[in-house]
Amino acid sequence: MSASAPRPAVSVLGLGLMGTALASAFLKAGHPVTVWNRSHAKTGPLAAQGATPAGKAADAVAASDLVVVCLLDNGSVREVFETLGDRVAGKTLANLTNGTPQQARELAAWAAEHGARYLDGGIMAVPHMIAGPHAYVFYSGDQEAFETYEPAFAALGGARFTGTDPGFAAVHDLALLTGMYGMYMGVLQAFALARTENIPAAGLAGPLTEWIGAMLTGIGQDAEAIDSGEHLTDVSSIAVNRAAIPNFTATFRAQGLTTAFFEPLQELLDRAAEQGHEADGLSRLVDLLDS
Amino acid sequence: MSASAPRPAVSVLGLGLMGTALASAFLKAGHPVTVWNRSHAKTGPLAAQGATPAGKAADAVAASDLVVVCLLDNGSVREVFETLGDRVAGKTLANLTNGTPQQARELAAWAAEHGARYLDGGIMAVPHMIAGPHAYVFYSGDQEAFETYEPAFAALGGARFTGTDPGFAAVHDLALLTGMYGMYMGVLQAFALARTENIPAAGLAGPLTEWIGAMLTGIGQDAEAIDSGEHLTDVSSIAVNRAAIPNFTATFRAQGLTTAFFEPLQELLDRAAEQGHEADGLSRLVDLLDS
Ligand SMILES: NC(=O)c1ccc[n+]([C@@H]2O[C@H](COP(=O)([O-])OP(=O)(O)OC[C@H]3O[C@@H](n4cnc5c(N)ncnc54)[C@H](OP(=O)(O)O)[C@@H]3O)[C@@H](O)[C@H]2O)c1
Ligand SMILES: NC(=O)c1ccc[n+]([C@@H]2O[C@H](COP(=O)([O-])OP(=O)(O)OC[C@H]3O[C@@H](n4cnc5c(N)ncnc54)[C@H](OP(=O)(O)O)[C@@H]3O)[C@@H](O)[C@H]2O)c1
Repeated sequence: MSASAPRPAVSVLGLGLMGTALASAFLKAGHPVTVWNRSHAKTGPLAAQGATPAGKAADAVAASDLVVVCLLDNGSVREVFETLGDRVAGKTLANLTNGTPQQARELAAWAAEHGARYLDGGIMAVPHMIAGPHAYVFYSGDQEAFETYEPAFAALGGARFTGTDPGFAAVHDLALLTGMYGMYMGVLQAFALARTENIPAAGLAGPLTEWIGAMLTGIGQDAEAIDSGEHLTDVSSIAVNRAAIPNFTATFRAQGLTTAFFEPLQELLDRAAEQGHEADGLSRLVDLLDS
Repeated sequence: MSASAPRPAVSVLGLGLMGTALASAFLKAGHPVTVWNRSHAKTGPLAAQGATPAGKAADAVAASDLVVVCLLDNGSVREVFETLGDRVAGKTLANLTNGTPQQARELAAWAAEHGARYLDGGIMAVPHMIAGPHAYVFYSGDQEAFETYEPAFAALGGARFTGTDPGFAAVHDLALLTGMYGMYMGVLQAFALARTENIPAAGLAGPLTEWIGAMLTGIGQDAEAIDSGEHLTDVSSIAVNRAAIPNFTATFRAQGLTTAFFEPLQELLDRAAEQGHEADGLSRLVDLLDS
């Protein structure tokens, strides 16, 4: 898109924390933006920024060829789509609501039946990161639709097309978020443990960030081990980690905290040891995550 | 210690991946180093670097006033200490083996009974980081002993004294490692999920590192929420995360992977919602980690 080309109109359905950030970013990039939200009051701040509030989702859809959807979950998306029916014909639906690959494939099929192009997306950002240098969105589905609107999507941050299988953005999204949830629950447990000894979370946040950041630099080596199947380690073995986990469960228990998050890890390490992998690194555990 | 003062002798008990890195760092810093390991063969590479191998733990202890211990677990430490008995009298025992606060307190009591000074330590590094700019060790216990040997400990990296309660280094160590295990298991599950769609781990490692690193920068805000008890969020609510977790369990199940790591998180989010915390951020979950 040349600098002088008019920016295409965008409608945003869903003005929660994330939808509001998306709509605001489209406005700032110069797009005409129409917004709709189930509770109408949330259109107010965006209208003040120049967006056109729509009273019904169908009105918002009528206003733009590109319709960006960001609702609570797949159930809400289905609900809103059902009210729209054939009025989505000719539109591009870019659904950035968190969902499964399967849900994305079903929504793509629904869109095709109703004459719309479908893109599924996974947002790799929290609201205040949107439009900033580190934000990006994974997209999958209709490649022509992606290419048409890639310059518009740039208003939100990076745009990464992961494939024409509509489920592929969700695979990438869920994979990265799985890493995040693991980190996050580890951090919250660390804060909880520290608190039992009156160590403020603010005092631990710096060392935690530094330490987890340092350990993150090692995952490239684990990735190589996983791809090659060669798990022998010079860092830290299944055996030594297996010996350490009881220290966590004993301490969390003694401090009155749940041990529920350590139990699946202990079980995995025990199984790895039983299978003779004691000298391997933790990367070996990937082979034991089958259900 | 002035540049010209002789560096004190150090004995290292335990030459696994970590003990070997510790002994090697003391050697490089110019300390006379005596090394002992249950399987004698592991003394070879260190002897080649200038260390004196000892055939018995007692001989290693006799050789230096500072004895650094790095064994598999507390059971191995107790076992070796029992063989030493009163021969530890007058020595400083710095035990850097992973353990619980309770174990540290018991070892300190044992040391006191046998006339030794005791320091407990938690190593915040993997072996190849030892002596590098990001490595450090938490110490707790005998403060005078810590101050005496602080310049020697500097050979390993930073030295952070956390308190005279011998259990305090373990509290800090376990807290940071809890964060690391969370991150690590999240990452391994991410690799496992990607693999079910033939996405190589090497391709995911960069985006994972970047994404988790970006999310890590937000934990200071969570720390403030935890310390203040004010959990209302403009980032991402209990409600929206609670709505998302079924997407992870459904997808992991569909791809033939365990959902065991998501179950305690789902349970926690459900409980937080039942208690009326839907609009709060995830930091609120810290209050629900009690057993
Ligand atoms: N926040 C983040 O950091 C973040 C990051 C990446 C991805 N996401 C994803 O983005 C999506 C939205 O997240 P958010 O943080 O914006 O959530 P949120 O603040 O809770 O907003 C949820 C939105 O969904 C609407 N909604 C809920 N049920 C509905 C229904 N049955 N019909 C119509 N609308 C309905 C809500 O409308 P009302 O105002 O009427 O309730 C609201 O606009 C989620 O899928 C989330 O996983 C969020
Ligand atoms: N590796 C890391 O990244 C790392 C990081 C921080 C802290 N740590 C901690 O450092 C400690 C050592 O870890 P590591 O990685 O060096 O483990 P490792 O490579 O498995 O070495 C374990 C050491 O313990 C010895 N040992 C085991 N049982 C024994 C017993 N009953 N009596 C005497 N010696 C015994 C082994 O002797 P043999 O050679 O005879 O088997 C070996 O020297 C652990 O507590 C670990 O949690 C490790």
